[in-house]
Amino acid sequence: MTGLAKGVWAAALTPLDANLAPDVAALADHCRWLLANGCDGLAVLGTTGEANSFSVSERLAILDGLAEAGIPGANLVPGTGCCAFPDTVALTKRAIELGALGVLTLPPFYYKNVAEDGVFASYARVIEEVGDSRLRLYLYHFPKLSGVPITHSLIERLMKAYPGTIAGLKDSAGQLDHTLSLIKDFPELAIMAGYDDGLLPVLRAGGAGCITACANIASRLASDVVRSLGDPALAEQAQARLTGVRRVMEGMPMIAAMKELLARHCGKDGWRRVRPPQVDLSKDKADALAAQLAAIGFSLAPVD
Amino acid sequence: MTGLAKGVWAAALTPLDANLAPDVAALADHCRWLLANGCDGLAVLGTTGEANSFSVSERLAILDGLAEAGIPGANLVPGTGCCAFPDTVALTKRAIELGALGVLTLPPFYYKNVAEDGVFASYARVIEEVGDSRLRLYLYHFPKLSGVPITHSLIERLMKAYPGTIAGLKDSAGQLDHTLSLIKDFPELAIMAGYDDGLLPVLRAGGAGCITACANIASRLASDVVRSLGDPALAEQAQARLTGVRRVMEGMPMIAAMKELLARHCGKDGWRRVRPPQVDLSKDKADALAAQLAAIGFSLAPVD
Repeated sequence: MTGLAKGVWAAALTPLDANLAPDVAALADHCRWLLANGCDGLAVLGTTGEANSFSVSERLAILDGLAEAGIPGANLVPGTGCCAFPDTVALTKRAIELGALGVLTLPPFYYKNVAEDGVFASYARVIEEVGDSRLRLYLYHFPKLSGVPITHSLIERLMKAYPGTIAGLKDSAGQLDHTLSLIKDFPELAIMAGYDDGLLPVLRAGGAGCITACANIASRLASDVVRSLGDPALAEQAQARLTGVRRVMEGMPMIAAMKELLARHCGKDGWRRVRPPQVDLSKDKADALAAQLAAIGFSLAPVD
Repeated sequence: MTGLAKGVWAAALTPLDANLAPDVAALADHCRWLLANGCDGLAVLGTTGEANSFSVSERLAILDGLAEAGIPGANLVPGTGCCAFPDTVALTKRAIELGALGVLTLPPFYYKNVAEDGVFASYARVIEEVGDSRLRLYLYHFPKLSGVPITHSLIERLMKAYPGTIAGLKDSAGQLDHTLSLIKDFPELAIMAGYDDGLLPVLRAGGAGCITACANIASRLASDVVRSLGDPALAEQAQARLTGVRRVMEGMPMIAAMKELLARHCGKDGWRRVRPPQVDLSKDKADALAAQLAAIGFSLAPVD
């Protein structure tokens, strides 16, 4: 693993085959399209990628398949955080072997209200069992889904115990003040906003960028924000366009809605498939979504 | 799988070895002790058993090990519910092969606020992939940890789609009114209280019994409630003793606290081990716990 994530990272969707198994060839195509259209990297196997709905062997096969398809490890920060540390260790080891830039690792998320000591011990066990100086670990703060916050004091303890290994954090809590406090308190970490509307203020404060679901469809807009950073007015216009897309998507079940948009855009019905407990978007909602995006003048980047 | 759970079921703790791997021999000993001291059965690999902190292969090895150790399948309702349906299917199939009475199956628990259709589809996929008429599935309602409630309408849909397969439900929400409404609305299901203080009212209303953490230490008291059901005053005294233990335990991190008590009782330090994110009980808390239980006159059943 080589360094710090920076810029626009998509929390890549995972296309499925007719049996709802991961369609790795279609995922590799999607990854290439994202990298060609504004994405600096790919946080595959995250929340948006339905990773926790796949078995560990399915996830390992996805990692192997992306490597075989030639997706560069330097553009990958795969999600590896499971409830059971042996699973997190297995996924993290494989990501390192395949040359991933880093891993994005949820804390164990079944038990709630766990002591910080227990969360620390979970990460410590993973880092020590992986036992590889190449490991660059991104902490994943998403209390709404994981139920387990990554506190400032936990970060301090982990950085002290494993200097150089803790590389960054994805903040999906959606509160800018919180993200800004992380940037201020941990200048050596790559702090990534997990929400598109935070991209510009996070970059201006010295944050590293964003890892978002919307980047699956709107990475060009996010990239415009990064590239126009030197021109405040232009940057704000770019952020406003990105935020506009975000506002439309927020009212939707995010995974199904973005898969629906890609199905329409690519002309591939299979893109619509989601794994339970996700559910398909209804035809009415899908039409409303398309209409709302058209109304704000948004369109996806062309597909080859 | 042979029928309906009834009576007192322990959500069995999982003893660990020095590397924090499951100690299956010690678990089998614990199971035998529980069955000899008031337990009608064993809900192994549940929340209290730290199941979600083990990989699927570790869980399969536990199931195999218990069978090899001669723990009768008829006394087992293993937990099998994972976030990814292939994992739930693999565990459920093995449980059936080993002759388990049933399986206790959490809904996928990473995504929150999922549509009921998605929870239905998750259970449906598992039942259909398992594809075995012997399957007896217990739904697991534990919204505080899973974040995914098992609603009455979901139960109705599943019972209609898979008659005979949905065998019961463990209600760990801790609200008696809710459990009583399940007993009333689903008389053909074995409704098990997931909280000790509900045992007597649940039995009186026609419920099947309880599956609880406290049964790891106090199954004799729970059994007293069941056996004295015909004598209201005696039954209430038994319930009061059980509730007394429950009240002491409630203030403690449940898993570590019960492991601590078993370590002291059996004279085996190894019983104290927990897997992250659980944490050890401090010496002060452990002493306070022992003192509180002694103050209410509680002691564990003798160990051979």
